[in-house]
Amino acid sequence: MRVRNKPWADDYIRDHQDYIVEDAENWVGKWSERFTKKQPIHIEIGTGKGQFIVEMAKQHPEINFIGIEIQKSVIAIALKKVVAADLPNLQLVHTDGADVDTLFGKHEIDTIYLNFSDPWPKKRHAKRRLTSPKFLDSYKTILKTDAPVVFKTDNRGLFEYSLITFNNYGMYFDMLSLDLHNSEYMEDNVETEYEHKFSAKGPIYKVEAYFNKKED
Amino acid sequence: MRVRNKPWADDYIRDHQDYIVEDAENWVGKWSERFTKKQPIHIEIGTGKGQFIVEMAKQHPEINFIGIEIQKSVIAIALKKVVAADLPNLQLVHTDGADVDTLFGKHEIDTIYLNFSDPWPKKRHAKRRLTSPKFLDSYKTILKTDAPVVFKTDNRGLFEYSLITFNNYGMYFDMLSLDLHNSEYMEDNVETEYEHKFSAKGPIYKVEAYFNKKED
Ligand SMILES: C[S@@+](CC[C@H](N)C(=O)[O-])C[C@H]1O[C@@H](n2cnc3c(N)ncnc32)[C@H](O)[C@@H]1O
Ligand SMILES: C[S@@+](CC[C@H](N)C(=O)[O-])C[C@H]1O[C@@H](n2cnc3c(N)ncnc32)[C@H](O)[C@@H]1O
Repeated sequence: MRVRNKPWADDYIRDHQDYIVEDAENWVGKWSERFTKKQPIHIEIGTGKGQFIVEMAKQHPEINFIGIEIQKSVIAIALKKVVAADLPNLQLVHTDGADVDTLFGKHEIDTIYLNFSDPWPKKRHAKRRLTSPKFLDSYKTILKTDAPVVFKTDNRGLFEYSLITFNNYGMYFDMLSLDLHNSEYMEDNVETEYEHKFSAKGPIYKVEAYFNKKED
Repeated sequence: MRVRNKPWADDYIRDHQDYIVEDAENWVGKWSERFTKKQPIHIEIGTGKGQFIVEMAKQHPEINFIGIEIQKSVIAIALKKVVAADLPNLQLVHTDGADVDTLFGKHEIDTIYLNFSDPWPKKRHAKRRLTSPKFLDSYKTILKTDAPVVFKTDNRGLFEYSLITFNNYGMYFDMLSLDLHNSEYMEDNVETEYEHKFSAKGPIYKVEAYFNKKED
């Protein structure tokens, strides 16, 4: 998603440092200080304009949410929603998701959400996909051993690639839907901006995958 | 697929014993005697009316094909095609695919095709699905270590189930398409009857999965 540069973004971000972290490296090991309660942390990488993470934080006060987004003019829009919602369990971080393993401690995170990640359709760009093996290495490091990567997308090529990559990496699939919006899983689905825009045009795919086999 | 009982089936099968095996248990360890050449064996379980296996055998004289089908009145229709094609590398077997591990030796088989297998949508019938773990146990036994299960279906629920099952069983995915008919894999696709009938109504799914990791 490319967005026009937002001239107001810098000022707005500077004025709302309670809700957004720009110097992520200074918060390593101290993320819980950003929240009122010490409770499980769920992160979303590529939060975009924030619709998903804000709604999740509203619905789940028992979880601390961190939305990570690399584009300043995009996260500034998310920040507006976060400021309006004014929730004690929601923070934004303006940084590159490729660095999550340096931002969080080992097994500190309870869920990673990837929603409608950039597809990078060209094969030579495969490494940039947020579901590529190098990213999985990082996710595995920061996730609790029984915690999932939860991935939604409308992009068939990216989903095919991700299923193969997760599987061959040795991850275990828990739920998997090839048409989320016509499935039993819609009941507790929280929609993202992209999902809202694209779910009429074709199926939305979703998978929850774990690095370790669950105990039955 | 339920087909009306075919009164001619018994006679027709009896008259064409060169192409069809009814006493599978008597051929264990001797399958190559049914073919003119000793060469790799590919089997299809649930061959139906035989369109796929006949066309495959035509295109690949370097492979011996065995089509397995449980319903007599269905395999009798396949037999008509097989007799007409008169190929030295194609045989039908009228038996239950659940028994493949008793029909073939260890690692005797080079590929297993499952095409549009009966979905058995009710959870309590999951064990009957040809991609359930008990069937995978048999497939693993008879397949060469570097040989795939190749599975196509239009049935979303069955494909979701099968991806999860293959994954949790520890199989590796090689190719995977969530819309075969709009993919690069169509070039060498051989259509089945069900595929012909259902590909206009929605996506055809396909996966090739291995029990062992391929050497890169
Ligand atoms: C296609 S948008 C989807 C936005 C939102 N998740 C949704 O579903 O509506 C992908 C977002 O991921 C962000 N992004 C891409 N690569 C990233 C990375 N390495 N780290 C953080 N964010 C990233 C992009 O800037 C963009 O805002
Ligand atoms: C839905 S039809 C598909 C036929 C064909 N493969 C196609 O794609 O057109 C499934 C077929 O599998 C056969 N079948 C089901 N269970 C079987 C089993 N355990 N062993 C052998 N055949 C079986 C059924 O009798 C039926 O002919």
